[in-house]
Amino acid sequence: MRFPLDRIERFVVEVFTRLDVLPEQAAITARRLLEADLRGRTGHGLIRVPQYVTRIEAGGINLRPRIERLRETPVSALVDGDNGLGQVVMTNAAEAAVDKATASGMAWVGTVHSNHAGAGGIYSALALDHDLIGIYMAVASANVMPPWGGRDRMLGTNPISIAIPAGEETPFQLDIATTVTSHGTIKVLAQAGEEMPEGWVIDPDGNPITDPTRANDGFLMPIGGYKGSGLNMALGLLAGVLNGAAFGAEVIDHRAVPDQAANTGQAILVMRPDLFRDLDDFKSAMDHYLRALREAGPPGSVHIPGEGAVSLEAEQRRQGLAISPTLLGQLRDLAVRFELDDGLEDGS
Amino acid sequence: MRFPLDRIERFVVEVFTRLDVLPEQAAITARRLLEADLRGRTGHGLIRVPQYVTRIEAGGINLRPRIERLRETPVSALVDGDNGLGQVVMTNAAEAAVDKATASGMAWVGTVHSNHAGAGGIYSALALDHDLIGIYMAVASANVMPPWGGRDRMLGTNPISIAIPAGEETPFQLDIATTVTSHGTIKVLAQAGEEMPEGWVIDPDGNPITDPTRANDGFLMPIGGYKGSGLNMALGLLAGVLNGAAFGAEVIDHRAVPDQAANTGQAILVMRPDLFRDLDDFKSAMDHYLRALREAGPPGSVHIPGEGAVSLEAEQRRQGLAISPTLLGQLRDLAVRFELDDGLEDGS
Repeated sequence: MRFPLDRIERFVVEVFTRLDVLPEQAAITARRLLEADLRGRTGHGLIRVPQYVTRIEAGGINLRPRIERLRETPVSALVDGDNGLGQVVMTNAAEAAVDKATASGMAWVGTVHSNHAGAGGIYSALALDHDLIGIYMAVASANVMPPWGGRDRMLGTNPISIAIPAGEETPFQLDIATTVTSHGTIKVLAQAGEEMPEGWVIDPDGNPITDPTRANDGFLMPIGGYKGSGLNMALGLLAGVLNGAAFGAEVIDHRAVPDQAANTGQAILVMRPDLFRDLDDFKSAMDHYLRALREAGPPGSVHIPGEGAVSLEAEQRRQGLAISPTLLGQLRDLAVRFELDDGLEDGS
Repeated sequence: MRFPLDRIERFVVEVFTRLDVLPEQAAITARRLLEADLRGRTGHGLIRVPQYVTRIEAGGINLRPRIERLRETPVSALVDGDNGLGQVVMTNAAEAAVDKATASGMAWVGTVHSNHAGAGGIYSALALDHDLIGIYMAVASANVMPPWGGRDRMLGTNPISIAIPAGEETPFQLDIATTVTSHGTIKVLAQAGEEMPEGWVIDPDGNPITDPTRANDGFLMPIGGYKGSGLNMALGLLAGVLNGAAFGAEVIDHRAVPDQAANTGQAILVMRPDLFRDLDDFKSAMDHYLRALREAGPPGSVHIPGEGAVSLEAEQRRQGLAISPTLLGQLRDLAVRFELDDGLEDGS
């Protein structure tokens, strides 16, 4: 069932403000969640609303965070999120990085005492609005696998996203977990009652698990074996340990322990392309090479990161956001609990 | 057969200087090639000497390059390598990045008109000597696969390496191609007369190729399917297109076309950890988490990037560098051709 975007956004803001989230912070959180859904990152969209509600009600989120910069230089900042909502903390950090990069050429901003912030691609994309390059990385909010060769879960899906401006073409936008799949994607399959392909999850004896509801009994697999495991560690060290945020055994599953602060860490690097080439020249070159990549196969066959997400977003902005029956049921339950005026009864 | 390091280094310097390479540039190139071998990156070590000789003799390398900074800010530089030897250009760029990061907190230095520079991990490791974080990326020197879903070879093995200081522990050092394997590794297998595992190379119809001498008939596979393909593109855009270096169809196979300038692009980001945490505090934390990762499995089972390379380097510095019979034969041929005093006849 589809709903107009502004209606869904109002709904989510209403839910969070009933829980005493400040209106501005509720608005930022709703916007970031919706952006994820619009781009097809449904595992980090509205599906997270019930989970955030649980965390807020359990006292696991600080609703009056004092977000401040503990360290700051013209090219960097360490943003202390004071356990506020992750979307709010990370938006603050991304905006700081954009401002600093605009002034200084480039900037790296890290977060500490943050929370799950949703789809990484949303934050690197914030740089695109200013013709800047954005690179985002995070310590994921639950451990899903051991380091390569090990047995104990110490690493999450640690994602990276990279956004690079273009001219007439869709900007390049990579947004990936460094595991073969993510818990968000598995959650979507579980809600849809579908099986996982082999190669996504193995049990501790190395046998495949294909039932998405049993994913927690096994380990996710990193992309490219030891290579992806190493990249995953690097992202965790740079987004977590460098900021004094949780890493390894300290990472709690923020869904399983909703009343505890997660001390999530993220980082974003923002850079001006005109450090290296005039902006128009660079954007023309990006157009040229993105077209060449697209033409390296039959029409429609080549996967260029960001193209699918941007065209899906345009389509959903026109036609409304599609919400799965299971999620819609959960949102309607929230509407009843909080006695909202709009119970999302009438989609199209 | 094993040889003392200083003897091999002298040998390589001698070969290059006979070809009219300036002594200082020959020394830098020899050192970088040896560092690759010492760390077990044999695909980027001495095995490249005969190939560089061919390129130099064919006129594909500028032996009197004027390496200069086309653009420069306190946090960045665009280094024009003027078609000099890649190790020389990239060492220049890495040193510029280290100097700028030391002064400004962080710096991104890109190269244009560079050449194949060997193992990426060598350059990110240069940052470690100054307690800095180093991240290196490059457009590889030959196209080996299409973008995901396509048919035309447009992408190389585009590598990334990430070096992060530690205290008592071995610094974290990731050094990977974003393909399942690399041409260097395949070349080593070919010289050893061994087969490739399935999953490294497929022919255009999707069937596995396992004969390493037939690798050029097929495509290398990216790590993690579309994810690794996207990461590979991102590295190519940031290390190549951003610098005005070759990308896509412009990338020549520097071995197949030894007389043409390659316009290779690389980039290195260097950053001070104390932007975010006091250095000693950060290094202690790195020690703590690296140990915790190592203890996530039975002793010796967990793969932590850099540990194997550093221990192999220590061993080879003690025992001498092992050189395969095929490569030794090629080096001895060069000794005869250039009438060198040391013909590497007597290893141990």
